[in-house]
Amino acid sequence: MKMLINEPNQVVDEMLEGYAAAFPRHVTILPQNKRSLVRAGAMRPGKVGIVTGGGSGHEPAFMGLIGKGMADGVAVGNVFASPPPDPILEATRAVHGGAGILYLYTNYAGDCMNFDMAAELAGLENIRVATVRVTDDVASAPKEQPDKRRGIAGSFFVYKAAGAAADQYLPLEEVVRVAEKAKDSVRTMGVALSPCYMPQTGQPSFVLDEDEMEIGLGIHGEPGVRRGKLGTADEVSAILFQSVLDDMPLQAGDRAAVLVNGMGATPLMQLFIVYRNIAGLLESQGIQVHQSFVGEYVTSLEMGGCSVSIMKLDDELAGLIDHPAETAFFAHRQGDAS
Amino acid sequence: MKMLINEPNQVVDEMLEGYAAAFPRHVTILPQNKRSLVRAGAMRPGKVGIVTGGGSGHEPAFMGLIGKGMADGVAVGNVFASPPPDPILEATRAVHGGAGILYLYTNYAGDCMNFDMAAELAGLENIRVATVRVTDDVASAPKEQPDKRRGIAGSFFVYKAAGAAADQYLPLEEVVRVAEKAKDSVRTMGVALSPCYMPQTGQPSFVLDEDEMEIGLGIHGEPGVRRGKLGTADEVSAILFQSVLDDMPLQAGDRAAVLVNGMGATPLMQLFIVYRNIAGLLESQGIQVHQSFVGEYVTSLEMGGCSVSIMKLDDELAGLIDHPAETAFFAHRQGDAS
Repeated sequence: MKMLINEPNQVVDEMLEGYAAAFPRHVTILPQNKRSLVRAGAMRPGKVGIVTGGGSGHEPAFMGLIGKGMADGVAVGNVFASPPPDPILEATRAVHGGAGILYLYTNYAGDCMNFDMAAELAGLENIRVATVRVTDDVASAPKEQPDKRRGIAGSFFVYKAAGAAADQYLPLEEVVRVAEKAKDSVRTMGVALSPCYMPQTGQPSFVLDEDEMEIGLGIHGEPGVRRGKLGTADEVSAILFQSVLDDMPLQAGDRAAVLVNGMGATPLMQLFIVYRNIAGLLESQGIQVHQSFVGEYVTSLEMGGCSVSIMKLDDELAGLIDHPAETAFFAHRQGDAS
Repeated sequence: MKMLINEPNQVVDEMLEGYAAAFPRHVTILPQNKRSLVRAGAMRPGKVGIVTGGGSGHEPAFMGLIGKGMADGVAVGNVFASPPPDPILEATRAVHGGAGILYLYTNYAGDCMNFDMAAELAGLENIRVATVRVTDDVASAPKEQPDKRRGIAGSFFVYKAAGAAADQYLPLEEVVRVAEKAKDSVRTMGVALSPCYMPQTGQPSFVLDEDEMEIGLGIHGEPGVRRGKLGTADEVSAILFQSVLDDMPLQAGDRAAVLVNGMGATPLMQLFIVYRNIAGLLESQGIQVHQSFVGEYVTSLEMGGCSVSIMKLDDELAGLIDHPAETAFFAHRQGDAS
C-alpha cells in the first residue's frame, strides 16, 4: 500500500502538527506530552469539560471532535492504540473550568484502563471526573452484554448530545445523564469491503476475497460476525439496517437521527446510494428521520466499507442533536439552510 | 474493485436521490430532468445566481457546493461526463432572481460546450448569463496557455470568492470580476498514487507500479506530467509546492489560502502530514497562511493521492474567503472558533 508518509514511527506526531497548523483557530497542542489537543481559547469557567481520545487512524475522529458544542480536549494515541494517562490528564487540567470533567470515549480495554488511571490522577488534584463509554457496535457482543460492546461511528451522536448539554452549562450529573441516555439510544452496524494497512508494517488488517464482504467489522480489523458474498448496495444496507433495528426498540411513529459513515476509501457516491436505501427502509417502517449525516466521521485509515448508525430521539435528544456545534470538520446550525 | 452499488447505470441517479434525501434542508432535485440540484428555498430576488456542474465521481464536488455563500444550482452529469444543456438550463431558470447568472465551472471541453449551449438557450429567455471557467491545474498546459488548463480542486477557492460576492448582492459584472480575479490567483498541482475504478466497467483509470506515483494527475485519469518513484510525504509535497510556486507570483510578505485535497482513498492522516510540510515551506518563504483547508473537496472516486492548491490573497479576496458560507459539506463562519 502506497502512503504519503515520512518516518512510519512519526505519522501520529506529524499528523498532529499538521492538524494544529491547519486549524489554529480551532485547536492547540498541549506542550507537555504533545499528544493532546484542546480547543483554542480552551477553558470556559463553569462549563463541564468533555475529554475524549483513542487511537489514531480514525480521522477525523477523535481530534476532529474538538469544537464548540462538542469536545473540549482530545488525547491522541498511536495508530489503533490507546493514549497513555499522561496526555489524558494534561487535557483534563487544561479544559477544567471548575464544573467537572466527562471522560467520554469508545469502549476498548486499553482506553478504559488509561482513562481510568487518568481519572484517578485527576481525582488527586481535586478534579471531579465522570466516565461514559460508548457501546454502539451491535456486532461486537450480544444484546444481553451491552457493556462488552465496542464503540464505533454512532459515538458521534453521543458526543453531539453530551457536547450540547455541556455547552448549555448543565451540571456534570446532567451531562452524564444525557450521555448515558444518548449512548443507550444509538446502535451501529458496519460492513468492510477491503482492509486498511498499518503505516508501520504495511500489512493489511485482514484479508477478504475479491467478491467477499465482512458484516460487523471492527474499526481496527476486529473480526466481524460473518463473511459473505458482496451483494448490491440495497442488499447490504438492508442487512445493516435490520441488524440495527433488531437490536433497538424503534417503531412506527418514532423519530431518528441517521449516520452513514464511510470507513475511509469508499467514495461518497456509494455512501449516498446506501443512504438512499436506508431512508426508504425507515420510511417504509413509519420512522421519521429528524436529521441525517453522510460522510467520513470515524474511519479506519483506507478501509473500504461503511457503517449505519441510528439514534432514537425524544424531544430532549432531538434538541441536543439540533444544538449548534462547530469543529474543524463538522458544523451544524439550527435552521441552517433556511 | 468492490463497490456498494446497485445497477451500475443507476449510480448517479441513486446518488442524487440519496443526497437530496439526506439533506432536504440544503437541496432540492429539480423535477424536469432530475439531474439538477438547487438550494432548498432557492431563488433570492436581486442576487446573482451561481450555477455550476460537471461530471459525477468528484463528490462532494459539485453538489456539495450548494449553499448560502456558495453555489445556488448544480447540474450533474454521468460519471466523469459533462451534464447536457437541459439540466443546466433548468437550474438556471430555478435560481434566476433577476440579477443574472454566473456559470462558474472547471474548464473541460464537454462542460464548455454544454454550458455555452445552455447560456444561449437562457439568453432566448432573457436571462443574462456570464461565464467564468476555472483553470487552476498547472500540470495540464503551459503557463503561456492558461485557457487550455483544466480546473481541479483549487476551483473551491473560486466558488468561495464568487459565492461570497453574490451573497453580498454585488451586481453580475462585479461577481464576474471577482471570479476572474480569484481564478487568476489560484494554482493547483496534484499527485496520484492509485487509480479509481469506473462503476460501469470496473476498470482502473490508469495503472501505476507498486512503487510509482504520477505527478500532475488529471481528476479523470488524464496523464500527468511525469511518473517517478514514490518518495516521502515531505519530498512529494515539496515537488507539488514548487510546481505551484514556480507558476505564480507569490513572494515573501504575501498572504495565501491553502487547500490540501484528498483524491478519495488517501487517509486524512496522510493529508495532514502533507499539510504540515506545505505550512513549513510557506513559512520558510515568508508567506503568511491566512486560511487553510484540509480534506476531500474534489475527489476522483477512490483514487489515491492528493493535490495542493494555493491562492494569493489581497484584502478583497481574503475578505471573500472569510465570508460565512454553509453547504452540506462545508461551513465557515468568520471568527468561528473565538
